Amino acid sequence: MAQQERAVRTRAAIVRAAAEVFGDIGYEVATIADILKLAGVTKGALYFHFASKRELAQAVLDEQVHAVPELPHEPIHLQLLFDQGMLLAHLLKFDPLVRGSVRLTIERGGHEGPDRRGPYLRWAEVTGEQLERARESGELLPHADVDQVAQLFVGAFAGVQGMSQALTNYDDVAERAAVLYQSVLPAVAVPSVLGRLDLRPDRGERVMERVVREGRAPDALRSAS
Amino acid sequence: MAQQERAVRTRAAIVRAAAEVFGDIGYEVATIADILKLAGVTKGALYFHFASKRELAQAVLDEQVHAVPELPHEPIHLQLLFDQGMLLAHLLKFDPLVRGSVRLTIERGGHEGPDRRGPYLRWAEVTGEQLERARESGELLPHADVDQVAQLFVGAFAGVQGMSQALTNYDDVAERAAVLYQSVLPAVAVPSVLGRLDLRPDRGERVMERVVREGRAPDALRSAS
Repeated sequence: MAQQERAVRTRAAIVRAAAEVFGDIGYEVATIADILKLAGVTKGALYFHFASKRELAQAVLDEQVHAVPELPHEPIHLQLLFDQGMLLAHLLKFDPLVRGSVRLTIERGGHEGPDRRGPYLRWAEVTGEQLERARESGELLPHADVDQVAQLFVGAFAGVQGMSQALTNYDDVAERAAVLYQSVLPAVAVPSVLGRLDLRPDRGERVMERVVREGRAPDALRSAS
Repeated sequence: MAQQERAVRTRAAIVRAAAEVFGDIGYEVATIADILKLAGVTKGALYFHFASKRELAQAVLDEQVHAVPELPHEPIHLQLLFDQGMLLAHLLKFDPLVRGSVRLTIERGGHEGPDRRGPYLRWAEVTGEQLERARESGELLPHADVDQVAQLFVGAFAGVQGMSQALTNYDDVAERAAVLYQSVLPAVAVPSVLGRLDLRPDRGERVMERVVREGRAPDALRSAS
């Protein structure tokens, strides 16, 4: 393995271990020693990539949007919007990277925590682009405010998954996420499109199976399906 | 002042100080010494009421629903549902008790944090009761699932306020909260009721002014209007 490739793999392993530690015990309690132990790398290797716990947390936050695999094609853009949310909900149950990254996003940390705005802004951008394509295809009601709806989906999703974590440790996250889309999409989608969407709670699981079958899941996610 | 009344006031002052400290720096970083300093009470007085940081956090969580004053009467039950959410959003900007309590609700803490389920369950119950009364008055569409919608409002609100905190330190919390209700209520309310609701973002501020004018705000909130 070339040296550069090895460095990339080491870095990814460290970020994954950091996410798992942050997800389990939170930013404040976590130590670099905890992360080192789980990652199974040397202190030198870790500090070659990251100067501080804050930098590790920042890397975990930066990975969040990329941790969701590219979606299988769908003719309706609003179906893709739902599929993405439901795939994220599914990953919250199984992928420590996603779970840790989302926990870092919604928890403020103490005085010198990482900048948590990135995931909110990036998800709002991705969701806004999907809604914009939906508008161009005539899927949206004329008064729908693309930016407002995108921001609502991102914020509300963050809360719905947090409530699921607090009450059921993510057992019902798919059901709660599906209710969010089922309740907001009627205010956004034209009825003929709405009636053709598959908005069932097990959609994320089925999309994940397709992603794995088509060989497009990152290695670390193969077992999460 | 009778001894019992003094004890009640001391306890309230400690809970309020605890909420402010938890709100500012989070559960993990906060110490009992920080809370003592802000409350201006003796160590003995604090330990008379609370045995640990965890018990202090639990008291702050228990106060959350009671921290929102009783709402002025409205003929439409769904208006009360909106008014309650918008009053809570308004308080997040001004009341350290509410801010600290909500932060404790959405952040998991380390190994031995407080039980955070209470506020989720209590808000879902209060919201469910409001929706049930709305149903009895014919305000809801026949297919609306009262429990599901109540849980959605609570979870989504938690996330929307968190996104507002992360991006604008609560500057736009009223706007974001209003968009949530404006987007979900069309899937729940009959059109004739929907058209009679005041769903503007400054509703919480106006409701708070009325509560203060009618002399029904707790002392600590008089300055928050």
